Amino acid sequence: MPYRPPVREHAFLLNDLLGIGEHADLPGFSEAGPDVVAQILDEAGRFTSGVLAPLNAVGDKEGCTWSPDHSVRTPKGFADAYRQLVEGGWAAIGADTAFGGQGLPHVINLSFSEMSSSANMAFSMYPGLTHGAYSAILNGGSDAQKALYLPKLASGEWCGTMNLTEPHCGTDLGLLRTRATPQGDGTYRISGTKIWISGGEHDMADNIVHLVLARVEGAPEGVRGISLFIVPKFIPDADGKPGARNGVWCDGLEEKMGIHGSATCVMRHEEAVGWLVGEENRGLALMFVMMNEARIGVGLQGIAQAEAALQAASDFARDRLQGRALTGPKNPDGPADPIIVHPDVRRQLMEGKALVEGGRAFLFWAALQGDLSHLHPDEAVRQKASDYAALMTPVVKAYLTDRGLKVCSDALQVHGGSGFTEHFPASQYMRDVRIALIYEGTNGVQALDLVGRKLPAQGGRAMLTWLAELEAFSAGARGDAATDPFLDGLDGARAQLQDGVGWLMQNGLSNPDNAAAGSHDFLHLVGLTALAWMWARMALVAQAKIAAGDADPFWTSKLAVGRFFLARILPEAGVHLARLKSGAETVMALPAEAF
Amino acid sequence: MPYRPPVREHAFLLNDLLGIGEHADLPGFSEAGPDVVAQILDEAGRFTSGVLAPLNAVGDKEGCTWSPDHSVRTPKGFADAYRQLVEGGWAAIGADTAFGGQGLPHVINLSFSEMSSSANMAFSMYPGLTHGAYSAILNGGSDAQKALYLPKLASGEWCGTMNLTEPHCGTDLGLLRTRATPQGDGTYRISGTKIWISGGEHDMADNIVHLVLARVEGAPEGVRGISLFIVPKFIPDADGKPGARNGVWCDGLEEKMGIHGSATCVMRHEEAVGWLVGEENRGLALMFVMMNEARIGVGLQGIAQAEAALQAASDFARDRLQGRALTGPKNPDGPADPIIVHPDVRRQLMEGKALVEGGRAFLFWAALQGDLSHLHPDEAVRQKASDYAALMTPVVKAYLTDRGLKVCSDALQVHGGSGFTEHFPASQYMRDVRIALIYEGTNGVQALDLVGRKLPAQGGRAMLTWLAELEAFSAGARGDAATDPFLDGLDGARAQLQDGVGWLMQNGLSNPDNAAAGSHDFLHLVGLTALAWMWARMALVAQAKIAAGDADPFWTSKLAVGRFFLARILPEAGVHLARLKSGAETVMALPAEAF
Repeated sequence: MPYRPPVREHAFLLNDLLGIGEHADLPGFSEAGPDVVAQILDEAGRFTSGVLAPLNAVGDKEGCTWSPDHSVRTPKGFADAYRQLVEGGWAAIGADTAFGGQGLPHVINLSFSEMSSSANMAFSMYPGLTHGAYSAILNGGSDAQKALYLPKLASGEWCGTMNLTEPHCGTDLGLLRTRATPQGDGTYRISGTKIWISGGEHDMADNIVHLVLARVEGAPEGVRGISLFIVPKFIPDADGKPGARNGVWCDGLEEKMGIHGSATCVMRHEEAVGWLVGEENRGLALMFVMMNEARIGVGLQGIAQAEAALQAASDFARDRLQGRALTGPKNPDGPADPIIVHPDVRRQLMEGKALVEGGRAFLFWAALQGDLSHLHPDEAVRQKASDYAALMTPVVKAYLTDRGLKVCSDALQVHGGSGFTEHFPASQYMRDVRIALIYEGTNGVQALDLVGRKLPAQGGRAMLTWLAELEAFSAGARGDAATDPFLDGLDGARAQLQDGVGWLMQNGLSNPDNAAAGSHDFLHLVGLTALAWMWARMALVAQAKIAAGDADPFWTSKLAVGRFFLARILPEAGVHLARLKSGAETVMALPAEAF
Repeated sequence: MPYRPPVREHAFLLNDLLGIGEHADLPGFSEAGPDVVAQILDEAGRFTSGVLAPLNAVGDKEGCTWSPDHSVRTPKGFADAYRQLVEGGWAAIGADTAFGGQGLPHVINLSFSEMSSSANMAFSMYPGLTHGAYSAILNGGSDAQKALYLPKLASGEWCGTMNLTEPHCGTDLGLLRTRATPQGDGTYRISGTKIWISGGEHDMADNIVHLVLARVEGAPEGVRGISLFIVPKFIPDADGKPGARNGVWCDGLEEKMGIHGSATCVMRHEEAVGWLVGEENRGLALMFVMMNEARIGVGLQGIAQAEAALQAASDFARDRLQGRALTGPKNPDGPADPIIVHPDVRRQLMEGKALVEGGRAFLFWAALQGDLSHLHPDEAVRQKASDYAALMTPVVKAYLTDRGLKVCSDALQVHGGSGFTEHFPASQYMRDVRIALIYEGTNGVQALDLVGRKLPAQGGRAMLTWLAELEAFSAGARGDAATDPFLDGLDGARAQLQDGVGWLMQNGLSNPDNAAAGSHDFLHLVGLTALAWMWARMALVAQAKIAAGDADPFWTSKLAVGRFFLARILPEAGVHLARLKSGAETVMALPAEAF
């Protein structure tokens, strides 16, 4: 069965759980009433399932093709689908109205992004990276740069990329070697090789706008000497139309485990003309604007692939007849029962549902914090939302992709031998999602960012505020036997998290290896606690609907999946805490040559 | 760096941990003194790393090629390597001397199998399946069948396959439709389609001997009407040479996520001549002889791929310079430190080591139980070994492959972006190992076999004997501060396992869904306890060596990795127990259509 956009889930999150209607006085939100949201979700669902999903397997099998003339052909159908995306205005949903966008909040844009990524992750990377380039120029560009580039990037008429990585330099950008030589006319000449550049070259847009990190001659060594440049493939002429070909060339494509439809390019900058964005040597900060947005987008990919994989597994489990239920035949007239009757199959599907639904709530909540941090008129609200967005970005990225891979692997497992063949989509989902644990900063880098930067920032303000909010929330919501177990679960997770925070404060400063060795487990403990909070909030909404007489099985199902989360997933918190508190000693006990 | 056969680890397990020298009075073991073992390990290491490993990436990239004449070409170099394997006598190590084999115990053969699988999993499946066919005929064949087929299969001159699965029938063999019509001359004519037949057709051997499950006309429905047949590709003539072409044809190959070098065939039996093995309608029991051996072999693949992936990750982590250690530069003269200095990288490598070394010990121990169950003169020893082998086979298969996948995924993660490219071997290890969780009975089927058959057999005799042995072992080994923590860990795991067994006894009978819903976690609890036992035993050996003045860092390293296991892996036992005891209710709460 084809991909089914989870419209109902999204509407529930936006309207019932996050109550975006309460923010109707904020810019953008005022355009996003329930009717508009419903219409966007429906149309997004139709476009992604109808246009993008049918190209997903094609993209995987065909991949992208590089030619010696440095051009790249995307899989059959991609260019036409991209044209439809631009014409449909989908690239512009979240962009500023000043540049031709629709100006909707990021949290609304998320729905379309998730559906696109579920339908075709490789395809959705092209508009995703374009939006990243848009944001970097919006944040740091001059008015002239904004006027020239933003309308084209907002509409998707031109595409964008991020050029960070070099062969010897990925996470450690201080090692970056690409040179920029000022020409005295406001332009620079950029030379150097960049690798793993998603969408670095392709045949879907009239122009490709590269955002490139390079080192201006004479700049300080390390990360304090890195600048950000705009390097368009075709230099816009006086009318803003793509003009002369710039010296930026695709020298080849990477063979990869997945996302074959996404062109992963080796890019050679050879005296390419570039324009500085912002100030010299301040490129890293601007890059992190893109990066933080991209990290939320990667967490989203974890959820999106898990959702799609879970749908495929559920369909397979309802169709495949094999064996009989232990409690007696459920399909007595057939040769066997559908395998969904087997508890171990059901366990994997339920775990997938609990992680996807809880994880998606967390993702949407985090994106809303991003919106509020920019748009809310109240400084205190903005600051709290900004704190939360900063604290949770690495958790969204790493926790949701770690768990997304697990859901995709379990979904493949439900297929049995069929899952290992490329005849079913399960293999592609698992191969595609694997990159999400790596790019935009590996999940290990996210964990280090969490314990090393985000947690201690402002004396731990964000975490302490959140812990207090969780406590107050739980205390204030008690009194219903149907939902109190969710609050018990949340209280337990919070207590363990508090214990972990305390341990880090006492042991991380004296030996930073203690914080780093426990960072992965600490991040998972935060993620689990966040999901426990989301499940408690979802349970309260569902129970209130039921109490008010709403007979929609959506609400009883929500409670049932939440109870599975409490019984079967939340107990993992204890293991993460135990590992964290075991410290660095056993981790670092061996010399490097012993491996 | 190329694959490095873990000769030292294998010698340690065989000689020091399992003490195979103590069994020198048993058939086969008498030939396996320490010198012979050392020689086999060295030569096996040389052959697998020198001949098989260089073909691993070739096999992945090239795959197998089907032609419309129903022939299959294996990847370049495979046929020549197979010829060397046969000429070197490697196929015959474990086969009976009566049929030209070397008659060595299974546990010794395991070393070669693991190294082969690490070096080239896809290639190693051809001799692996041949050995399965050998075992089935050895167990159930007539003397004439043994005389005709076993010497050719033992030497590897002919290859073997298992033909079980049909498009509508995998786990549930009762649905099998392939027909066998008796011809009155002792032969049958077999017709039907089999899928996913590994090595069903290829160009590496003079003949392929298919072991085929089919239903004799008029046989009872379900699993009680299934018979096993020998269907050779070429019917042996009067001299035992491959003669007339039989009606068994490869109609195509499966496109798969991994093991591309292994030909996964659709096999059409069209009035193929077959010879019954054993009695009519008793085929399933014979098939399970093959199957149980194959399941140990699949558990081995989990360890083998994890070992190879871990080696690749360790090499990468020592070479790749990126960032600085949090505790100060470790490579001050270089541009950055090797990433192995980072605790989160080290965490993943240590976890891999703890799982591979502990898992391999468990695998070798389990294989030794298989040998003792056949060879030991004492009936009581045979029975206990047989109980243990039966109980632990599903655990070896499922636990070691579940954890093997995790190690391979973490090893890929250590590579960062490089791991996702096919330029490094990490992707292939992860894609190849993924099938091991599925074939020869999915890991879910293994878990059900454990809780539904193996655990309750003879009133739980095997499990109760094992729990008592663990308790006595721990009590008898106490008294050294260096090793007592290992015994504490083992005692804790055993207590939780006992709790889980008790819960299953009380709740699994009243509602079989309770046992099935908890089966995965119960299996992991057994696996963890087994590894805790192995680590305690390894720690005792290491500590005794150290106490005796042996300064080999091998022993201190063993203790260090064991301590990591105690601190960071063993705590998972509590989660598995909590999930098990949460029962089926939350798992089965939703109707099938809610997914």
